[in-house]
Amino acid sequence: MTAKPKKLVLGLPKGSLQDATFLMMKKAGFNISVGSRSYLPAINDPGLEGRLIRAQEISRYVEHGMLDAGITGYDWILENQSDVQVVADLIYAKQGLRPVRWVLAVPEKSPIRSVKDLRGKRIATEAVSLTRQYLRRNKVKAEVEFSWGATEAKAPELVDAIVELTETGSSLRAANLRIVDEVLQSTTKLIANRKAWKNPWKRRKIEQLALLLAGALAAETKVLLKLNVQQKNLPKVLSILPALHAPTVNRLSSEGWYSVESVVDEPVVREIIPALKEAGAEGIIEIGLNKVVP
Amino acid sequence: MTAKPKKLVLGLPKGSLQDATFLMMKKAGFNISVGSRSYLPAINDPGLEGRLIRAQEISRYVEHGMLDAGITGYDWILENQSDVQVVADLIYAKQGLRPVRWVLAVPEKSPIRSVKDLRGKRIATEAVSLTRQYLRRNKVKAEVEFSWGATEAKAPELVDAIVELTETGSSLRAANLRIVDEVLQSTTKLIANRKAWKNPWKRRKIEQLALLLAGALAAETKVLLKLNVQQKNLPKVLSILPALHAPTVNRLSSEGWYSVESVVDEPVVREIIPALKEAGAEGIIEIGLNKVVP
Amino acid sequence: MTAKPKKLVLGLPKGSLQDATFLMMKKAGFNISVGSRSYLPAINDPGLEGRLIRAQEISRYVEHGMLDAGITGYDWILENQSDVQVVADLIYAKQGLRPVRWVLAVPEKSPIRSVKDLRGKRIATEAVSLTRQYLRRNKVKAEVEFSWGATEAKAPELVDAIVELTETGSSLRAANLRIVDEVLQSTTKLIANRKAWKNPWKRRKIEQLALLLAGALAAETKVLLKLNVQQKNLPKVLSILPALHAPTVNRLSSEGWYSVESVVDEPVVREIIPALKEAGAEGIIEIGLNKVVP
Amino acid sequence: MTAKPKKLVLGLPKGSLQDATFLMMKKAGFNISVGSRSYLPAINDPGLEGRLIRAQEISRYVEHGMLDAGITGYDWILENQSDVQVVADLIYAKQGLRPVRWVLAVPEKSPIRSVKDLRGKRIATEAVSLTRQYLRRNKVKAEVEFSWGATEAKAPELVDAIVELTETGSSLRAANLRIVDEVLQSTTKLIANRKAWKNPWKRRKIEQLALLLAGALAAETKVLLKLNVQQKNLPKVLSILPALHAPTVNRLSSEGWYSVESVVDEPVVREIIPALKEAGAEGIIEIGLNKVVP
Amino acid sequence: MTAKPKKLVLGLPKGSLQDATFLMMKKAGFNISVGSRSYLPAINDPGLEGRLIRAQEISRYVEHGMLDAGITGYDWILENQSDVQVVADLIYAKQGLRPVRWVLAVPEKSPIRSVKDLRGKRIATEAVSLTRQYLRRNKVKAEVEFSWGATEAKAPELVDAIVELTETGSSLRAANLRIVDEVLQSTTKLIANRKAWKNPWKRRKIEQLALLLAGALAAETKVLLKLNVQQKNLPKVLSILPALHAPTVNRLSSEGWYSVESVVDEPVVREIIPALKEAGAEGIIEIGLNKVVP
Amino acid sequence: MTAKPKKLVLGLPKGSLQDATFLMMKKAGFNISVGSRSYLPAINDPGLEGRLIRAQEISRYVEHGMLDAGITGYDWILENQSDVQVVADLIYAKQGLRPVRWVLAVPEKSPIRSVKDLRGKRIATEAVSLTRQYLRRNKVKAEVEFSWGATEAKAPELVDAIVELTETGSSLRAANLRIVDEVLQSTTKLIANRKAWKNPWKRRKIEQLALLLAGALAAETKVLLKLNVQQKNLPKVLSILPALHAPTVNRLSSEGWYSVESVVDEPVVREIIPALKEAGAEGIIEIGLNKVVP
Repeated sequence: MTAKPKKLVLGLPKGSLQDATFLMMKKAGFNISVGSRSYLPAINDPGLEGRLIRAQEISRYVEHGMLDAGITGYDWILENQSDVQVVADLIYAKQGLRPVRWVLAVPEKSPIRSVKDLRGKRIATEAVSLTRQYLRRNKVKAEVEFSWGATEAKAPELVDAIVELTETGSSLRAANLRIVDEVLQSTTKLIANRKAWKNPWKRRKIEQLALLLAGALAAETKVLLKLNVQQKNLPKVLSILPALHAPTVNRLSSEGWYSVESVVDEPVVREIIPALKEAGAEGIIEIGLNKVVP
Repeated sequence: MTAKPKKLVLGLPKGSLQDATFLMMKKAGFNISVGSRSYLPAINDPGLEGRLIRAQEISRYVEHGMLDAGITGYDWILENQSDVQVVADLIYAKQGLRPVRWVLAVPEKSPIRSVKDLRGKRIATEAVSLTRQYLRRNKVKAEVEFSWGATEAKAPELVDAIVELTETGSSLRAANLRIVDEVLQSTTKLIANRKAWKNPWKRRKIEQLALLLAGALAAETKVLLKLNVQQKNLPKVLSILPALHAPTVNRLSSEGWYSVESVVDEPVVREIIPALKEAGAEGIIEIGLNKVVP
Repeated sequence: MTAKPKKLVLGLPKGSLQDATFLMMKKAGFNISVGSRSYLPAINDPGLEGRLIRAQEISRYVEHGMLDAGITGYDWILENQSDVQVVADLIYAKQGLRPVRWVLAVPEKSPIRSVKDLRGKRIATEAVSLTRQYLRRNKVKAEVEFSWGATEAKAPELVDAIVELTETGSSLRAANLRIVDEVLQSTTKLIANRKAWKNPWKRRKIEQLALLLAGALAAETKVLLKLNVQQKNLPKVLSILPALHAPTVNRLSSEGWYSVESVVDEPVVREIIPALKEAGAEGIIEIGLNKVVP
Repeated sequence: MTAKPKKLVLGLPKGSLQDATFLMMKKAGFNISVGSRSYLPAINDPGLEGRLIRAQEISRYVEHGMLDAGITGYDWILENQSDVQVVADLIYAKQGLRPVRWVLAVPEKSPIRSVKDLRGKRIATEAVSLTRQYLRRNKVKAEVEFSWGATEAKAPELVDAIVELTETGSSLRAANLRIVDEVLQSTTKLIANRKAWKNPWKRRKIEQLALLLAGALAAETKVLLKLNVQQKNLPKVLSILPALHAPTVNRLSSEGWYSVESVVDEPVVREIIPALKEAGAEGIIEIGLNKVVP
Repeated sequence: MTAKPKKLVLGLPKGSLQDATFLMMKKAGFNISVGSRSYLPAINDPGLEGRLIRAQEISRYVEHGMLDAGITGYDWILENQSDVQVVADLIYAKQGLRPVRWVLAVPEKSPIRSVKDLRGKRIATEAVSLTRQYLRRNKVKAEVEFSWGATEAKAPELVDAIVELTETGSSLRAANLRIVDEVLQSTTKLIANRKAWKNPWKRRKIEQLALLLAGALAAETKVLLKLNVQQKNLPKVLSILPALHAPTVNRLSSEGWYSVESVVDEPVVREIIPALKEAGAEGIIEIGLNKVVP
Repeated sequence: MTAKPKKLVLGLPKGSLQDATFLMMKKAGFNISVGSRSYLPAINDPGLEGRLIRAQEISRYVEHGMLDAGITGYDWILENQSDVQVVADLIYAKQGLRPVRWVLAVPEKSPIRSVKDLRGKRIATEAVSLTRQYLRRNKVKAEVEFSWGATEAKAPELVDAIVELTETGSSLRAANLRIVDEVLQSTTKLIANRKAWKNPWKRRKIEQLALLLAGALAAETKVLLKLNVQQKNLPKVLSILPALHAPTVNRLSSEGWYSVESVVDEPVVREIIPALKEAGAEGIIEIGLNKVVP
């Protein structure tokens, strides 16, 4: 008798987070392909079953157990007030390695200057519950209505204020809106159903996923620098390399020469390459990385 | 002192109903152009101010008076339970001159056979209130949850049933779903704010809009047939033309010849043209119409 | 007991002829809509069942009776050597109201000057049988091979000559090819299965289709001219109007004025409008037509 | 001996004016088709040879005789300071039946309030000569530089002011620019080479083009209204119809009934249809027109 | 006197295999760029001349010597029954590193359960010869007809069964078809003309191509793992690394530390990274590879 | 008091050079993202402020100091006759790592055979000044006119010759034009404003940019080869590796084995891999590089 193979059912976010998530999963070692039936993407791991679901809904189905785990935004976990296990913070959002922000915005010429001024006003948002939680925290009573889209066009004619997602604020400015307050910063999370989290096999699978995703994410902003250097210049070269990741130093066959390798944060590279050259480093090369696991 | 010109603020449906609505408005004599600020489309009538808003929200803003009137689907008026004046039934929907249908659908192999079987089940839909009204009418208690999209993929894994829009049923079949019941048939409506409806100038403007839209809609399925016929064949020819719209008969300069014009329903044309020819009609021509006002 | 409704199964050409065919059908009074299952388009006539099939294959399935009738190119009827009833010549092709041409083409610098020079050569074409029939008519033996596409790129390196479809010859010129001979001119045909043609109900339906398509096609190049003219100028005005379609002359209520209407070929209009004005015609208007049935 | 057929070489504007021009030409009776060699569009009139050239350059080539006639914007005739015969004003521009405007615009917060304030400033524009003519008329000295595009993004950082085309002003507002002055209003013109204008055959051909284009343009904003009315209501109905175009009145075969036809400006239709109904008109239909030649 | 440079004429598959092939060639070190004349792509190797030809036709032209070598699917080599030298099996197909399958499929409700049931039936396919070979192998007589496309829509109305390409079977399921048998598995092959294969220079060039393509293909599924480890943990770490590719071990300058590098199959990575960490590995990094030549 | 942070304002080329430039900047370590306001792209370096401007205009604004530095084509620096500091030659253009060419072209059948034959002729070009400089160098007087586009269609009807950009010459050939002379070869340059170049902070920033861009460009055509080899084969293996970049040789823990690493020009790889294998190299792997700084 063959036992049914073990499977982890994993919710993947359809829509704006999808591309970034699939890329991270690929770097973590999991290829996802979406065929004509997009709800059931194929993953090249017999232990994983993907489900492609709107980010807004994933935490709901993880909570109720239709999914064992899921990748979704922190904002929608709060909006749904879902009781789930947050396993890992994956520090990416729609457009890169930084959080998105939900902000309270009003028309440029509105007299509203703080959340307190919202008393009795009408607010449109896609995140009704999130907005109500925010108002409650601030002890303000106001009417919150669900917006089906184009929220930034609604103030001031249809509503007094909006709570809307923004990355750079430029689409708010283009709509002549002013940011009054930040309601929430949100990044992507790996979450698990509380019961699945207690199942040893499932927990191990989820933790493997978390480790590999973290390794892939770390590699996003890191590169490998390699260089050769003479013994006399070695201390100076080593002093330039950031202390965080200890460089690998290795004696070469050519007398008196060393090779040095170090994983470096990408934004630092552009600062130190001129300095390394000056310090006597030769043959500097930079190599991209798929994963970095410290 | 110049009086501010009178304006009717009119909500126009953004999204799937938009193209059909703009076409009807154009045939009715109103050109709408959407620039970079799509919320404020321009209309070539100084008495009208357009607002481009999701069909789901129009009735809400008509009810509360931000809009004087609006064009939206009957389904969303019910979903919002808006208290508005329904002025005219415009018998078109997204894809032509017929209603759309909201249906209750379940997986092919589901044991659910009627609304009664929904007791205690979970239903996903974009129209939560509509679905709850339907369940209440049928005295059934079930859990209804808002679906952010791709609803037809959710059954049976995430929910037991869905309530979804359909035109031909083909996308439901493609998802291996079976229609159990029709929840609602919906067409497009011209609606008015109750206070605006009592304002004589606004009501007159809304009624003009209703008359012209009705004329444009009627013209969609009608054509003008013109033909010449000799006196001896006139009675036979007239007997073939539908009685509904009395034909215009006119004596020509050529002795014994008459011209006949008649507005005819387009689907009838393909049946009667062979008959008219046989009855002696000559020089039959068919002309398209912009408006038909009986 | 209800009798099964009578149906005519009609093959419609998928691909390059599709748009032109659907437009003609629409003008003839038949709206065709293609949903997600494109093989089964819907037609707004309960007596017609559409099948969307490549033009290359329609005559094959009409001959064998899977289709009662079909609209396809004359070229593919010959290519398939199908035994079918040709009901009507619909004088349109892919890009307008003129035939397409299959031509024999060779590289600019090829020594081949006539079909006779093909002896022993290799020819690539999408229409292998058509080309073989052409060679046989010309008593030339040559190798003909099926081309899966990009035929015009194959000469001179892969083959010596090609037989290819052309409308203006410009893509052949762009590939540095020279037309040696015309193999076939082809227009669109309405064809019927021989057995279906003997069934009275089906034949009547096919003839109705033929009449309405012919009316729609005729209307493509005709317009209605209307004008008013005083009695003294009437003869001159009438002499300018083409004799083919007798104008409808009508006495107006204004003493001494006549209205004149005439269906005119569109290319003629631009010649006669200046002449009509000079002859005293007033209020000349031109109206487009959906159908003209003489 | 065969004489070479007479031909008029006509410049047609490539780019933003192209679609509107082709549509007008089609309504005037000339089908233009652009193949792979877009410089040489085909026109269905053996007496016309089209050349598709940027609107900016047409007047230059008409002046120098490479083209006999051309359709282009008044702005570019002035920019090129071309000595050509202006034959007709075709009152359309890129986006409809109204002129485009070249305006002087500056950043919202600029101290520049009038053309006089431009002294010593730097202005970017696609129409360098036009702008210099404007400055000269206003006796202002300033530096004008050619802008290769995205002109509205250049102020205030790269230049002090711009001279730019606008239709609704919305893209200027979106770039936070303020209109200071109107430099030019421009519509489309039919122009002729001075020598071609003196050639009788060419002049006749150009005038035919002008007449038909004018007829097509007039038809853009007019429709034919047809209605039936009883004798007693005839005067009232006639009094409602605009006086400009005398209606055609005609006694019907039915005793005491008249048919009335009138060409009416389209924006008027929406006002008078309710009035006509009230006055006793029946069976009102509205028909679109291809050409109106008074 | 300059000798004409030696050239290998190489057929590259146009269409569905094109992207995957160009990518492999690029990884192998050959950049192919397709300009406006797509038949003649440019390759950055003076010894190679590319020809872009439909995969269906390449083996035909390799056999006849118009091409020295080609990259095409095994299916089309069989379909054309081409006598060519198969040089290398490149284990990719349209959508990844796995074969495509030609299958025999019938409507869900068809009584056909095995190839034997095809006797006397009609089968549509793009691969007529392949299908006939299959039937002959199975000693079944049936009618096979060429399908110009949309083959899966043809059963059951037009034919009884189809032989069609599939990767996941999902488009067959969507068309309500059931797979009865597998006709062929096919991958991409590098093939050579028999005469070219005997020419030493050409054979050397083809073998170089085969080696580099194999290296690029191997790299598709492999990565380089690097890590540092203390001497005491070295044996455990080494025992975890797959035995297939011997790891490179190297003493570092820091006393008692070793660096380990190993090429690892990508799917294994996600299993061993947690184990390596547990075994004491530090600073694990994963690097992508362009080529792996064992 | 906080000092304003130092910023270098950098012009980036909008249009055909944009993609290649953004890619190089990214490899150099600078991510550029273009939002809704494309004039102000964001760069992930607080010391850089990007401006997205047409390549044609950048040198003008660098010269006048609105930009501190810029990346643009050498052709447009000459066309604008801008007095700027050329800091680095970045050897890429629109379509790869090679210059673009401006050529003088005439119709195939034109009698013009050299620049001398242009005397008194009319030339169309987008680069009027460049063309005039070229004529002056060749002591030829001719009329040069600005072309707004589609320049290659203008000869011979509108002008006698053109000066146009070309990469492969194929679009000129398609227009039946013949290249008479090369006017200019152009690559991309990093340029600086003369005053900014004297400011130490700005110069240092520009030099850093130049160094990193050069490193990224060098990496475009180089790869890292790694291999293992036994001592006896080491000399032979080292003799095969190009002398330019000295290989890094390293004794492995396995007795008698060495690892060898070398940065190699990519086009050389395909030649030496077979040779290296033959010489006893094992486990050859190739790794792509982000930057190479010698």
